[in-house]
Amino acid sequence: MKTVRIFKIGGKITEDPAAMEQWISQLKLIDSPFLIVHGGGVKADEMLSKLGIERKMIQGRRITDKETLEVVVMVYAGWINKKLTAQLQRVGIRAIGLSGPDGRILTSVKRPVEPINFGEVGDLSREGVETTLLTQLLDLGYVPVLSAITCDGEGALLNTNADAVASAVAQALAIQYRVELYFCFEKMGVLREDQCTVIEQLSDEEMEQGLIRGAFSEGILPKIEWARKARQLGVQRVCIGAADQLNAMITQTGLFTEVLAN
Amino acid sequence: MKTVRIFKIGGKITEDPAAMEQWISQLKLIDSPFLIVHGGGVKADEMLSKLGIERKMIQGRRITDKETLEVVVMVYAGWINKKLTAQLQRVGIRAIGLSGPDGRILTSVKRPVEPINFGEVGDLSREGVETTLLTQLLDLGYVPVLSAITCDGEGALLNTNADAVASAVAQALAIQYRVELYFCFEKMGVLREDQCTVIEQLSDEEMEQGLIRGAFSEGILPKIEWARKARQLGVQRVCIGAADQLNAMITQTGLFTEVLAN
Repeated sequence: MKTVRIFKIGGKITEDPAAMEQWISQLKLIDSPFLIVHGGGVKADEMLSKLGIERKMIQGRRITDKETLEVVVMVYAGWINKKLTAQLQRVGIRAIGLSGPDGRILTSVKRPVEPINFGEVGDLSREGVETTLLTQLLDLGYVPVLSAITCDGEGALLNTNADAVASAVAQALAIQYRVELYFCFEKMGVLREDQCTVIEQLSDEEMEQGLIRGAFSEGILPKIEWARKARQLGVQRVCIGAADQLNAMITQTGLFTEVLAN
Repeated sequence: MKTVRIFKIGGKITEDPAAMEQWISQLKLIDSPFLIVHGGGVKADEMLSKLGIERKMIQGRRITDKETLEVVVMVYAGWINKKLTAQLQRVGIRAIGLSGPDGRILTSVKRPVEPINFGEVGDLSREGVETTLLTQLLDLGYVPVLSAITCDGEGALLNTNADAVASAVAQALAIQYRVELYFCFEKMGVLREDQCTVIEQLSDEEMEQGLIRGAFSEGILPKIEWARKARQLGVQRVCIGAADQLNAMITQTGLFTEVLAN
């Protein structure tokens, strides 16, 4: 079974040119087929602020009204996706940037307005991932670069959590490939309450104990949940760690969080 | 020889929902492979104004400084490209939105700063069009939707005239296909000095006489030049006309401008 790797890159890294260069230099060393998933909340916040549009969050999640949607589509699918793709092309990686409507690659379902109306937000399951197109592109030697903008198939664009996109794509590809999923961000992994020790092996038990103690910060919780879901639904390896430790994660030599299946 | 059609759509149409719906309903009727090229100057101007960035033009062409580039990339490659692709998908057209860096599909050369510094602007020749990827996508049954954002291959994004992109793509594909190029916009075609009579056949002679008389508006001149260049470099048919007359142009029944080869 062929291995496909999926790299989710965080918004604090894509906005830091030195960190991006470091991360991309590691991608160059990877010989198996891979794809990239990104969001871009940091840049979107900057653009919202410039436009005088209020940033609205509930429980660490963005409320995407219609004018906010336009901004996140412009930032994620436009600037970040194309800039990242151009940077990858520069070092010889055959990147091709795509978003949800492109070949209907990511078709999500608009989130119900009850109990909280998150606005133009879509939830993506593995059934919404068009693996035929992804497989065609991987077979042709391309590296798909997916933004977290999804579509509903009826002409609308929707904002989706980028960790959720990475997880759903991994789950969908796990049906035909051996899939490894790496969440790359600015921290060394999932941290204990002290906010500096890395949980090296995140099991169900560790997770439950952490939840009881309130050990996890609000920001990391959705990431852990999407990571665990991927692991439970057939993804062979799921890691959470620092972008500059990518090759260490792949070769299992450095410090990072490995998400266990049980 | 297989026929491929290229449709350039103007910014006044993409910003008009009713006009877009009408245009897309005509695309549904087309059975041969086709692709779409768009810019988005109208929407970009709106966004520049909201951001308080001055719109700078010389000789009808945009000066693209770095902050303007970010806006045009967001608007063309982000909002317009993804919204258009989602609308096409909605009616069953297998659209896939791409910009220059995606698979290096459009690699341009940054315009020299002398005599006029246009800023982050790239000139695209047919050699800069990656026809292998376009052919792969057409063969797989997809409809590429290309924004006018190009790349330099060295990590930079550049702003390119969308008419020039349509012309270069047509020229490049004309090497292996029979290509027809249609410029669709809000007017009925290239108009005479009276600004209402359509020049139905635009020959070299008609063109030269028009130039001497100053018959053409500043806005239409680059379009005519790119149209003629495509016709001279092997594109079989080049038409300029109203978006809502697309099928009439294709079937040669309505009122529009046909660009002749000499």
